[in-house]
Amino acid sequence: MVAAMKIGILGTGTVGQTLGGKLVELGHDVRMGARDAANAKAAEWTAGAGPHASQGTFADAAAFGEVVFNCTKGEVTLEVARLAGEDTLGGKVLVDVANPLDFSRGFPPSLSVCNTDSLGEQLQRALPRTRVVKALNTMTASLMVDPGQLAGGDHHVFVSGNDAAAKVRVVELLKSWFGWRQVIDLGDITTARGTEMILPLWVRLWGALGTPMLNFKIVR
Amino acid sequence: MVAAMKIGILGTGTVGQTLGGKLVELGHDVRMGARDAANAKAAEWTAGAGPHASQGTFADAAAFGEVVFNCTKGEVTLEVARLAGEDTLGGKVLVDVANPLDFSRGFPPSLSVCNTDSLGEQLQRALPRTRVVKALNTMTASLMVDPGQLAGGDHHVFVSGNDAAAKVRVVELLKSWFGWRQVIDLGDITTARGTEMILPLWVRLWGALGTPMLNFKIVR
Repeated sequence: MVAAMKIGILGTGTVGQTLGGKLVELGHDVRMGARDAANAKAAEWTAGAGPHASQGTFADAAAFGEVVFNCTKGEVTLEVARLAGEDTLGGKVLVDVANPLDFSRGFPPSLSVCNTDSLGEQLQRALPRTRVVKALNTMTASLMVDPGQLAGGDHHVFVSGNDAAAKVRVVELLKSWFGWRQVIDLGDITTARGTEMILPLWVRLWGALGTPMLNFKIVR
Repeated sequence: MVAAMKIGILGTGTVGQTLGGKLVELGHDVRMGARDAANAKAAEWTAGAGPHASQGTFADAAAFGEVVFNCTKGEVTLEVARLAGEDTLGGKVLVDVANPLDFSRGFPPSLSVCNTDSLGEQLQRALPRTRVVKALNTMTASLMVDPGQLAGGDHHVFVSGNDAAAKVRVVELLKSWFGWRQVIDLGDITTARGTEMILPLWVRLWGALGTPMLNFKIVR
């Protein structure tokens, strides 16, 4: 039995639709935010997802959510954070699922930030009063919400963040909402460098194995 | 039954000593190369490893080996390649185990090259006639030569390289020498970006789990 919550989703792409869809299914109220309150992709998703789904601006979704997911493309994440509003997101848990993928040189993508900084850190600096937790950025969308599809869920999701209580909360939600069995808390938000920097390997594994339905298990 | 081979090891650190030690144990003849033919660490290793172990300069080890391992620190790898000699290493399989770790800003290290290039690619460009295969750079030294220590070997090693036959040969050697059961060929040498870029996550996993005895299993 899961208590119904209000969730904000920033972004209208596959990740936002997949997370939002699963959360509506679980009985939560989900507001999907976009630049334009009448965004067509959000409207289509909302129409299909039923009465617990709604749409609005980034600021609307940020204000609505007790927990907010950043599901935007990395290239616009910081702009979206400004549009959502530093005050609006102040004190809230923001789960950062974005990756700083740069397709400007074609495929495979490089990263627009890495090594001595990360998108997760940039987002935390842009929103100093928000409790940013990097998570779920290391697998394809359908696995985020249903890890049991692979090996009965015997593989890992990582969390990074400066606020210990926010990480504990996110770990609980990952387990109770999506069925994650194995979560590793890597440490503060600087550890997001590590999870963002495995994207280049992830993309090549997709190529080598011919499927994005893959994930990392940490064997010890 | 493994036919005895001549192996060159470039570098005298833990990785070189561990790989060299295992190869001597298997009955191969191993020459460890250093800047100085009388390098003290190589002398100590050679004395302990028995009659199949010898030492010399980087060029000596490169000339000696039918297969050569680059076990140098990333910061000196390209200089060592020059010292070993482009002609000497021409046509040979060079297994590149190095990582471009940069400790100049302290711990955890960053990478001195990543994202749009890699140490593996730099090494291949410096040695255009050498068959560079990136491998074994994603785990601690003792696991490289004995993956069965963890989960009966149910985890992965990756190979990257431009020469398909050289990769097939390295995969055979990883299996027959060290007992690797699961090897993924990621593609050409540019895929070394991916395996080098998981080092920041690897370092943080070591911190979070309190042990370097860990490895990645790709679940699909």
